[in-house]
Amino acid sequence: MNYPNGKRSTVSKPDKTPKKPDFSNRGMTLEEDINVTNEYYLASNTAVIHKKPTPVQIVRVDYPKRSAAVIKEGYFKQASTTDYNGIYRGNYIDFEAKETRNKTSFPLSNIHQHQIDHMKAVHEHGGICFMIIRFTPHQETFFLSAVKLFYWWDEQYKGGRKSIPYSYIQRNGKLIPFTYQARVDYVKVLDKLFF
Amino acid sequence: MNYPNGKRSTVSKPDKTPKKPDFSNRGMTLEEDINVTNEYYLASNTAVIHKKPTPVQIVRVDYPKRSAAVIKEGYFKQASTTDYNGIYRGNYIDFEAKETRNKTSFPLSNIHQHQIDHMKAVHEHGGICFMIIRFTPHQETFFLSAVKLFYWWDEQYKGGRKSIPYSYIQRNGKLIPFTYQARVDYVKVLDKLFF
Repeated sequence: MNYPNGKRSTVSKPDKTPKKPDFSNRGMTLEEDINVTNEYYLASNTAVIHKKPTPVQIVRVDYPKRSAAVIKEGYFKQASTTDYNGIYRGNYIDFEAKETRNKTSFPLSNIHQHQIDHMKAVHEHGGICFMIIRFTPHQETFFLSAVKLFYWWDEQYKGGRKSIPYSYIQRNGKLIPFTYQARVDYVKVLDKLFF
Repeated sequence: MNYPNGKRSTVSKPDKTPKKPDFSNRGMTLEEDINVTNEYYLASNTAVIHKKPTPVQIVRVDYPKRSAAVIKEGYFKQASTTDYNGIYRGNYIDFEAKETRNKTSFPLSNIHQHQIDHMKAVHEHGGICFMIIRFTPHQETFFLSAVKLFYWWDEQYKGGRKSIPYSYIQRNGKLIPFTYQARVDYVKVLDKLFF
């Protein structure tokens, strides 16, 4: 574990890729950054938003005597919803988060039809629904409203392109600010757009 | 599979405990009933509420050539939230569901501190939070608001009892109606209490 003063915990194991203590988000995945952010939101009583567990089809479980049950065979299932949901300022919040190494566009193959169906249903029922998209080469993380995602999703089946241009997201999304405690401080964007 | 006319599907496998075709909920677990209900709510555009996947700590995964990844070692983790959440009439909905074979009370050992903490946070942020409790011996399924659950939860640490009396739940909860499509039709209770 690294402490904010840059000193490493003496109990930490040797680490081949030490994290830089310069508050940058290099080396952390988008998922890790969002989890840290959500923990901060929870601890500071800002919002209650959690990542859903990865869906697993459990096929075989062993029950050793005097030990915890062990899953011996399981498979990853495709998620039928988005990964994150919860409540902020009394509103239902629902989003999916993806990062891409692509510099010029976000490939729609990162999203599944089930997730779009879910997001459309949430939107219809009055929830606040969006995507968080990180372009790792640019070190930029964007908020894109679900309605704008739906446009590109539907267009691809009418002969449109299979990705959302980076330039479109720059102009029509919102850059999500980075702070040490809220590494993907997306509620700041919600505050501007909805409250 | 049983059809509403009471005839069994000819393709169904032999079943040692045939389901009665009398629309009772005998034989189905509370979780199965709620899943069927949520599917009906989704299909009828009533609400968007899902069960969260069971949290699993994945330790070892094999990647066989030309086949799906196989989880070879995993463990069940304790949930840090409730099992169900989503949106109904624009409101954030969050609940936990438990069944008990106990006739006279609902043991609080069915719930964990983490879940109570989560429910309290949701309640503070303006979400609609509750428990669904089924007494299998009585074949009754009740709605109990989270605030009433908190009272009993907190009392147990002040020398109070470690269970909620059935008689209390009868008087202070709401019996959830059973219909064929919505086997645990909890939004009917929400309609009466909140809308």
